[in-house]
Amino acid sequence: MQKVGILGGGQLGRMLLQAAANYPVETYVLENDAHAPAAHLCHHFIQGDIRDYDAVYNFGKDLDAITIEIENVNVDALEALEKEGVKVIPHPSVLRTIRNKASQKKYYTDHQIPTASYLLTHNIQELAEQRAFFPAVHKIAEGGYDGRGVQIINDEADVPKGFDTLSVLEKLVDVEKEIAMMIAVGQSGEIAIYPAVQMVFDKTLNLLDFQLCPADIEEKTYWKAEAIALTTVKNFNSPGIFAVELFVTPGGEVLVNETAPRVHNSGHHTIEAHYSSQFDMVWRILLNYPLGNTEAVLPSVMLNIIGKEGYSGDAVYEGLEELLKIENAFFHLYGKRQTKPGRKMGHVTIISKEKTDLLHKANKIKHGLSVISRN
Amino acid sequence: MQKVGILGGGQLGRMLLQAAANYPVETYVLENDAHAPAAHLCHHFIQGDIRDYDAVYNFGKDLDAITIEIENVNVDALEALEKEGVKVIPHPSVLRTIRNKASQKKYYTDHQIPTASYLLTHNIQELAEQRAFFPAVHKIAEGGYDGRGVQIINDEADVPKGFDTLSVLEKLVDVEKEIAMMIAVGQSGEIAIYPAVQMVFDKTLNLLDFQLCPADIEEKTYWKAEAIALTTVKNFNSPGIFAVELFVTPGGEVLVNETAPRVHNSGHHTIEAHYSSQFDMVWRILLNYPLGNTEAVLPSVMLNIIGKEGYSGDAVYEGLEELLKIENAFFHLYGKRQTKPGRKMGHVTIISKEKTDLLHKANKIKHGLSVISRN
Repeated sequence: MQKVGILGGGQLGRMLLQAAANYPVETYVLENDAHAPAAHLCHHFIQGDIRDYDAVYNFGKDLDAITIEIENVNVDALEALEKEGVKVIPHPSVLRTIRNKASQKKYYTDHQIPTASYLLTHNIQELAEQRAFFPAVHKIAEGGYDGRGVQIINDEADVPKGFDTLSVLEKLVDVEKEIAMMIAVGQSGEIAIYPAVQMVFDKTLNLLDFQLCPADIEEKTYWKAEAIALTTVKNFNSPGIFAVELFVTPGGEVLVNETAPRVHNSGHHTIEAHYSSQFDMVWRILLNYPLGNTEAVLPSVMLNIIGKEGYSGDAVYEGLEELLKIENAFFHLYGKRQTKPGRKMGHVTIISKEKTDLLHKANKIKHGLSVISRN
Repeated sequence: MQKVGILGGGQLGRMLLQAAANYPVETYVLENDAHAPAAHLCHHFIQGDIRDYDAVYNFGKDLDAITIEIENVNVDALEALEKEGVKVIPHPSVLRTIRNKASQKKYYTDHQIPTASYLLTHNIQELAEQRAFFPAVHKIAEGGYDGRGVQIINDEADVPKGFDTLSVLEKLVDVEKEIAMMIAVGQSGEIAIYPAVQMVFDKTLNLLDFQLCPADIEEKTYWKAEAIALTTVKNFNSPGIFAVELFVTPGGEVLVNETAPRVHNSGHHTIEAHYSSQFDMVWRILLNYPLGNTEAVLPSVMLNIIGKEGYSGDAVYEGLEELLKIENAFFHLYGKRQTKPGRKMGHVTIISKEKTDLLHKANKIKHGLSVISRN
C-alpha cells in the first residue's frame, strides 16, 4: 500500500480521510492539535507544526506522496521532499505562487487572466496615498485565512483598518454573481472539471450564504468562466485539485478572485451530489488512478454550519434533531468540541431535482439550526 | 459528545466509521487485529477479544452506547452492560436468538413466520437417520459464518459432510429468487424499510453473484416479502438495523432464510444509491436521531470483490486502474493487506437509471478485476 501524508488535520482532512477508506492506502497526518477533526481517522497521526521545516521534512521523507488541506505550510520542506522524489501534490511552486496574494495577482496578470485591477502597498502610508483608487479591498499578502486579513477601504476614514505590511489593494468590483469552479488535474496532466457553483446571497428573502449547483448563469458567461478557470489551472503545470473563485459583473465580465490549490468549501456538495467527490478525486490523483466522473447526480445546495455570534465553548447543535428529519439533506458535523463565533462547525448538502425544494430546505436549515455553547 | 463502541473491526466497522465522521460522536472499537480494516478509523482502538466476557465488559462499561458488526460476541457481557444502563443496540436478547441457528428457526416458527421446514440433529447418527428428509441443508447451530458451517446433504453419501453437534437440518427449498430486505428500527420503535434487493446468479450469461436494487419481483411477492420481513423484525422488540434474507419459490411462496441484526453485505449499495445509507442509519439509531430516508436516488448493482482461488499473500488488484475509469462505479477496497481464496476484499456499487447499463458494467468489473497475490 502507498503511504500518503496530509499536512493539516481540519475538516478538509477529515473528509479526505473518509474518502481514503475506499482505497488501499496508508494515511499519515501532520497536525498540531491532537483533537483536530481529522486526527483520529488516519493510520498514523504525527503531532507537529505544518509551518516548521523539520516537522514537515521528517513527516514526509518516507512517504510516497504528500498533499495539503491548507496553504499555510512550510514550502521549503516540500521543495526538499520533492527533490528527493516524494510526490508533492500540488507542486510546491504552486503553493509559493498562491499563498502570497501579491504573487498570486502577478500570476494572473502574467498569464492574461482577467482579475480586478490592483496595486501593492507596503505600509499604511502607501495605502493612504492611494485614495484615488478607493473604494478598494485591502488584502494582506501572507497569512490571511477564512475572512481574516481582508478589509474593505471605502474612503480615507477606513485607511486605519488597512494592513501595515505587504498587501494587495484591489479595486472594488461591482459583483453581480459569485461563482466557483473546481478542476482536477491528474499526474499525467489529464483534466476533469466540475460544474460551476454559485454563492447565493439573497437579502430580500433573508437567505444568506449558501451555494447552488449548477450555477444559475448564462451559457455565454459559463463558457467564459470555464475558459478562464482552465487557463488559471493549466498554467500551474501541477497535478492536484483547484478551486477557482470568480466574479461575474453586471456587464457579464468574468474575473478571477482567488484560487485554492486544494479541496475547498465550494466543493463540499460533490460528496453526495456528484459521482466522484472532490475528496475521492484527490485520492485518484495521489494514487495515480484515472480521474473520476465530475457530473452531478442531482442539483444541490450546500450551506455551512457556523458558530453563532455570542457563543464560545462546548458546542451544542440546537434544532439539529428536528432538521435531521428533512429528506435528502446530508449533515456533516466536523466533531469540533468547541464553538466560537463564525467557526465552521459543519455543512449540509441538500440534493433534489427541484430548485424550489432545494431553496426551501436550505432556508429551513439556515433558520432552524444554531450552534451555541452549553453555558 | 456521546461515546459509542463497536464490537469488531472488519469492513462493516470500517464503513460504519466512515459514516460516523458526519456526526459529533466519539468512537471506540474492540478488535483482536490491530491492522483490521476499521482499526485506524476510530478515536480509541482497544485490542481485545470480542468473545471474551471481561474484554467486552471493560470495553463497554464507560460507553453511552454499543453496537456490533458481527454476531459472534460475548452476549453475557452485553447483558451485564445493558443492566447497568449502557444502550446495547441491538438488544442482547436478539443476538441470543439469532446467533444460534436452532433458536433462530424456533423464533420464526413461534411467530408464524414462513421458513423452510426443519428439524434438529445433535450428532452425525441423528443426521443419518433422517434420510427421508433429504435433500436438505445441514447448518451448524453456532459458529458458522460467511458460508462456513453449511453443507448440502443430497443423499446418504453426503452424511459424513454433516456436523457432529447441534445443527439445523432444513428441507432444501426450490428457490426461484433470493432477495433481502434491510429494516431500521429506532430507539422509540419507529421503522424505516429499504427497498428489497435481489441476489442475481445468471449462469447463462456467466453473470454471477451480484445484487440488484430494486429487486425484480412481482408486486404481490413484494408485499408478501415486506410483511414477512416486518413481522420478523418487529417481534425482536429491539432498535437496530436488520437484514432479512428471503427465498421466493417458483410458486410465489416467500420464506425467511436468515436474519442478521446488523449492517450487512446486502446493504452496501445504500452508501451511494440511497439517501441514507445503512451505515448512516446506524448512527441515527445509536445517537437517537430521526431515521433517514431509505429511498433510492437511482437503481443500483453491487458486487463483492473476492480473493481469487489459488492466491494467498499480499493483495494486488489486477485490472483495477482500467476499471476505475468506468463512470458511475464506486469502488470500496477494505485495505486488507492479505488476500486468500474467497476473502471479501472490497465491493463495487454501480448506479444508473438503465438496468442494461448496470448489468453491462457489473459484468465488465466481474471479469476485469482479479485479486491475486504478489508472489
